[in-house]
Amino acid sequence: LDNGDTFKFRKTYLDMHFYDQSTFYLSLKKDERLKLYDILRPNEMGDMFDTIEDELPEIPEFLDEMDVKYASKMLNYMYDDNAADVLEHMDKTHVDQFLSEMPTSDANNLRGLLHYDTETAGGIMTTDFVQFDQEITAGQAIKNLRQFAETAETIYYLYILDENKDLVGVMSLRDLIMQKSQTVLKTVMNTDLITVNVDDEQAEVAQVFRSYEFLACPVVDHSNKLVGIVTVDDVIEVIDDEAQQDYSGLAGVDVDESINDNPFKAASKRLPWLITLLLLSMITATLVNRYEGLLAQASILAVFISTITGTAGNAGTQSLAVAVRRLAIDEIDRSDFFKLLGKELLTGLFTGVVTGVSIFLLVGFWKHNFVLGLVIGLAMCAAITVANVAGSFIPMLMSRLGFDPAVASGPFISTLSDLTSVLIYFSIAGMFLQYFVGS
Amino acid sequence: LDNGDTFKFRKTYLDMHFYDQSTFYLSLKKDERLKLYDILRPNEMGDMFDTIEDELPEIPEFLDEMDVKYASKMLNYMYDDNAADVLEHMDKTHVDQFLSEMPTSDANNLRGLLHYDTETAGGIMTTDFVQFDQEITAGQAIKNLRQFAETAETIYYLYILDENKDLVGVMSLRDLIMQKSQTVLKTVMNTDLITVNVDDEQAEVAQVFRSYEFLACPVVDHSNKLVGIVTVDDVIEVIDDEAQQDYSGLAGVDVDESINDNPFKAASKRLPWLITLLLLSMITATLVNRYEGLLAQASILAVFISTITGTAGNAGTQSLAVAVRRLAIDEIDRSDFFKLLGKELLTGLFTGVVTGVSIFLLVGFWKHNFVLGLVIGLAMCAAITVANVAGSFIPMLMSRLGFDPAVASGPFISTLSDLTSVLIYFSIAGMFLQYFVGS
Repeated sequence: LDNGDTFKFRKTYLDMHFYDQSTFYLSLKKDERLKLYDILRPNEMGDMFDTIEDELPEIPEFLDEMDVKYASKMLNYMYDDNAADVLEHMDKTHVDQFLSEMPTSDANNLRGLLHYDTETAGGIMTTDFVQFDQEITAGQAIKNLRQFAETAETIYYLYILDENKDLVGVMSLRDLIMQKSQTVLKTVMNTDLITVNVDDEQAEVAQVFRSYEFLACPVVDHSNKLVGIVTVDDVIEVIDDEAQQDYSGLAGVDVDESINDNPFKAASKRLPWLITLLLLSMITATLVNRYEGLLAQASILAVFISTITGTAGNAGTQSLAVAVRRLAIDEIDRSDFFKLLGKELLTGLFTGVVTGVSIFLLVGFWKHNFVLGLVIGLAMCAAITVANVAGSFIPMLMSRLGFDPAVASGPFISTLSDLTSVLIYFSIAGMFLQYFVGS
Repeated sequence: LDNGDTFKFRKTYLDMHFYDQSTFYLSLKKDERLKLYDILRPNEMGDMFDTIEDELPEIPEFLDEMDVKYASKMLNYMYDDNAADVLEHMDKTHVDQFLSEMPTSDANNLRGLLHYDTETAGGIMTTDFVQFDQEITAGQAIKNLRQFAETAETIYYLYILDENKDLVGVMSLRDLIMQKSQTVLKTVMNTDLITVNVDDEQAEVAQVFRSYEFLACPVVDHSNKLVGIVTVDDVIEVIDDEAQQDYSGLAGVDVDESINDNPFKAASKRLPWLITLLLLSMITATLVNRYEGLLAQASILAVFISTITGTAGNAGTQSLAVAVRRLAIDEIDRSDFFKLLGKELLTGLFTGVVTGVSIFLLVGFWKHNFVLGLVIGLAMCAAITVANVAGSFIPMLMSRLGFDPAVASGPFISTLSDLTSVLIYFSIAGMFLQYFVGS
């Protein structure tokens, strides 16, 4: 690029995989990128931009530094779901500028895609798919396929429509090439259609791909018309995003922290969580404060505060994690709700009894004080049971109220469980005080 | 199935998607399944078995209840990666029995696949792929493709070999059908090959699919010979498994708990973690115990134990989660190791200072005791810094030593951080004791 042999550069560059092209592009400085826009055609640029992660913060800058006509041609050449994803992150003035340079029908198409919620099937679908009339033959279809091969995101599934333009069948290219060329599509197409609705959550779409092992899946609107398809590459992104969200929720931090973020930026992302949880934990402190009299009489009680809060917090986190994963996989209806809560209560009770007996023995033998052991054991058992039920109830309730259950994070549950554990511990200790202090 | 109209049943059943067939099959009782084996041919059964989750505990039972010849025909008809996955979970005697019924070459092929570690490219690849000689024409290739279409797991990528049977190029079916029929493959094939090695970790394979948006990727052995391909459906399974492992690690529980597990089974899966962590937290208790004298003099100190341990634990979990995700995405070499640790130290320090100042002010004004506030603030700052560094250091060290960093779980880090937090807290409190108790 630097030594000016444009022809040689073009050959080397275009022989690379699009992803390797994008790695190269992202390593360039601004003046080098400007040279590249001169050397490459908008469609060659578009192929590469199709593989760039659309959430990259630099993308609006890249488009700004291009000539408006060039950028808009490039966007038009890209698969429309990717172009829409890029435009999603730009301000309205720029979007309008780009769209005004495109042919009206393409611009309207993109406007339509921008209109869908990004986390639904509509938000991840492409309208660049292959459709045929059911009356044509396999031979015609293969011939016509060539014209689609330039623009369609996948040509490995053909969607087959009737005379009302309703989706009536699907065929894979694999099935198509097995047919005799005079066979009419409608006689061999697969009519057992699995579709997703344009408003379906992206997580549900991913579930369909997992079950049926599709490479693409048709998206229909409310009147059952085919409006687009979702392809498997977008589903992999969805699966990664969902996993990252769940993981971030459990950790109480957005784990999408760049390796290049400086320590202050990293800290500023983590602090809002920490300070919020700190304030919550101050409620626990005021609660312990009310028991200062008790502590003054039996300072031994302080020794086990962190054992009880820590263990109950761990149990609550376990219960939370199981519930969040379950909610991600299955829909839980009202009758299941109470059944699951009951199960979690029993699981908590059983876990609590085993852990309680363990700590009863540990403390009893260590301190030669089995009444103290009993206090700690009972408190542990009760605190674990409560933490288990809370860890399961809170995400299920949030999901029922329409919130993402993963937001009820691990640290939130364990901080909340500190509060209930301390309350339980000191209440029980207060009741037994005269027995274990004397002994 | 029950009313005996075999012909009608076969039609309805075979018109369903394989996944829906498998849902139906899994809902049957044993005597109904036995009927099904009479009605369906081994290949029809194999198509359905290809979509059943191979980790299902009932699978060995299903194969046992089939006639050995029938089961072995079915396994032979299945894609060989799926057949190998099924055999993986059966005992050796059964495996040998099934393999002895197969043609020798097929049996040897499966034996070869069983030999690879399940978490590597070899463990998830199939040998049912399409390969052509580089000298044939596009027209011949399309004609020959039909014979592969029955058995190959995907026909959408063609792998092209030279006369030494070395992999020299790849072509997609999409590119192939765009060619004139007399074009020789070697003149148009893509020679910029992206391959994975048979011993590569499955997580690395998934990373290749994410970057290049492949539907399949060739797997080569140490002498660079093509031995198989990995397809995108298996990669989705890998991504799900890895996410689940990370999530389970962070929660300190195997979240793959079935909704049908009874509470005792669920508890028995969670207890080993809880009891281990309880023992670790007992070390913290003995540490606090050593400071009982201090606590007797200043019971106010007990009020803030859970605030400090809880907040430091939250900070440690954040740092752990960021480190584990980073390790999952990037290889971290030796120079990065210390750089990242230094960054995490600064992040911890900055987070610690902000949180420390907050609690200093909160405690100072609440208790009208700014020396106490200072003690708590300093302890908080130090405890958070240590927890941050530990949360980052431990997974990085584990990864360096060849262990899965996700095993250093959230609860483990927060329980460990309880210990260091308490030690820091009481050390600082001990130093300042005379100043804040008097005031």
